[in-house]
Amino acid sequence: MKNEQLDFWIKQRKDQKRKRSVETLFNGLRSGNNSALSAAITLIESSLESDKVLANELIKKCLPFSGNAIRIAITGIPGVGKSSFIEEFGKIIIGEKKRLSILAIDPSSIKSKGSILGDKTRMDFLSTSENVFIRPTATGVTLGGVARNTRESILLCEAANYNVIVVETVGVGQSEISAHSMVDFFLVLMLSGAGDELQGIKRGIMELADAILITKADGQNINLAKQAKQQIKNALHLFPAKENNWTPITETCSSKEKLNINLAWEIINDFFTIQSKNGWIKSKRIEQQIQAFNSTLQSEIYQDFLRKQKESINHLENEIKQNKISPYQAVETLLMKNLETES
Amino acid sequence: MKNEQLDFWIKQRKDQKRKRSVETLFNGLRSGNNSALSAAITLIESSLESDKVLANELIKKCLPFSGNAIRIAITGIPGVGKSSFIEEFGKIIIGEKKRLSILAIDPSSIKSKGSILGDKTRMDFLSTSENVFIRPTATGVTLGGVARNTRESILLCEAANYNVIVVETVGVGQSEISAHSMVDFFLVLMLSGAGDELQGIKRGIMELADAILITKADGQNINLAKQAKQQIKNALHLFPAKENNWTPITETCSSKEKLNINLAWEIINDFFTIQSKNGWIKSKRIEQQIQAFNSTLQSEIYQDFLRKQKESINHLENEIKQNKISPYQAVETLLMKNLETES
Repeated sequence: MKNEQLDFWIKQRKDQKRKRSVETLFNGLRSGNNSALSAAITLIESSLESDKVLANELIKKCLPFSGNAIRIAITGIPGVGKSSFIEEFGKIIIGEKKRLSILAIDPSSIKSKGSILGDKTRMDFLSTSENVFIRPTATGVTLGGVARNTRESILLCEAANYNVIVVETVGVGQSEISAHSMVDFFLVLMLSGAGDELQGIKRGIMELADAILITKADGQNINLAKQAKQQIKNALHLFPAKENNWTPITETCSSKEKLNINLAWEIINDFFTIQSKNGWIKSKRIEQQIQAFNSTLQSEIYQDFLRKQKESINHLENEIKQNKISPYQAVETLLMKNLETES
Repeated sequence: MKNEQLDFWIKQRKDQKRKRSVETLFNGLRSGNNSALSAAITLIESSLESDKVLANELIKKCLPFSGNAIRIAITGIPGVGKSSFIEEFGKIIIGEKKRLSILAIDPSSIKSKGSILGDKTRMDFLSTSENVFIRPTATGVTLGGVARNTRESILLCEAANYNVIVVETVGVGQSEISAHSMVDFFLVLMLSGAGDELQGIKRGIMELADAILITKADGQNINLAKQAKQQIKNALHLFPAKENNWTPITETCSSKEKLNINLAWEIINDFFTIQSKNGWIKSKRIEQQIQAFNSTLQSEIYQDFLRKQKESINHLENEIKQNKISPYQAVETLLMKNLETES
């Protein structure tokens, strides 16, 4: 065979192989095969350029089949009992013959410390159920990367006919804002106590909540939990009404005694019914997508500019620090320079 | 005279005139002339290109003489009694032979509805004092524009030997975040009452506060004010400690009975002494400048890109809305296109 022929043949084989692998993953996950879904998520998490092409093809195929699940974020500081809550919460969901997917956003994994979430061993029942899919965050990516992976994983899970998607985060940082921007309902778990424990919850997270549950309201803890509930209700009072007119609900719960776990699921269903009917869910999801587009674009464009103008920027930042130039003059200098390079 | 000679002569005259006007403004404001300061602020607010050149020259001359004032933001919803408070607060400051400048950020003026702040007629005493400079926001500019104008006005006032700069805002929106990013101390005024009134304060503003004062704690209102104080203290408890270790202070006050107005000034002085000594003020101010640089740069670069790629962006947003493409694929498409145009 001549060289050109050989090249052509190799390319053809590769193309075929590529199409087959996307096709295989797509058919696999559509038919409810969790290994295929798992491999699909691994593909979208990959940073290889060749994998990215495949991942984009796969996402494109899945998009028409996405959007049918209830998307819920569940957050709370370590020790609040997230795993125990999700275990009981999940039992109710799969008891209704629904399929449940649990995705984790864990900021600690970003620094490659390994994921403390999505720990299958702490959800004995769910981790062995065939209608449940649990997936921890990939380690070693940026928060922006995690957001992208999780957002696209939601699409894949929906294409794989999961009806309920839980995005699990640790309530200590930026990842909650990120989770909030990709779900319909934001559930915050809190510990009871004298109020001081609540400080573990980062500013601004409480006000994102559609519901707050005080966990471990059992045994000697019941009264403390009730007090915490009242405290939180008072604090929520300070926030103005949400744009969808939903009033956040505060309740106590106990995973151990299965108290109010059912109620949580009812609240979420009520929310979803009301907000679907009035069109909020649909418009919110479109808004979330456009926002993801705009913020990713803004950040990528800026990063690109920073790379290209690194030296000038460093120089100007030093001038600012030495009070030689105002921040706005520095920006004008850079924009002027940019115009010159372009023309 | 030949044409070239004439052109040269005209240019020389213009240059001289320009240098003279910057020189005049600079000398005027440095010598404490409020008309010169006022004209200088009008110059930096101007959108004329020729004025911008002059404004930049003026700012550059003022920068070495800036940075010596205490910068305070005072915010609260309409009706909380900002003008009355600032009138009494200002009396104490000028009683100490200090010079006080009051700048207003008023979002309502952005839509050219006119400024509801910086209303000299409501500060009888201060508006006739020669050691006080009051300046309302220019109307008809964007919030970004207002932030820039205010930030540069602070520099001019400091060069004009003002010792205390008050940035006054209405506590109902984004302008508080903006004010917070240009001051050392953030003072929030709140109304007493059953708690519901507090809803007028936008989410996230309370947590910026270095001190919260419940106003109108006089007559029959005293008990309500005390209750509000306790409520707010409880709510503040929910926020974690500030990075500078300052614990926000909550107190009641009355402008009518001159109650705790002095205390407010003492608190701010304590804050300034402590935070100057430990270096926080200095590093915070540098951080604020660099942040203004980065955020303005990011926004300008993005705006520039939006203008150039408007059509493609609209097209891609529609594709996203129709679920034909993921937000991330849309960004990739745009970046690819951008690379092609560049090379």
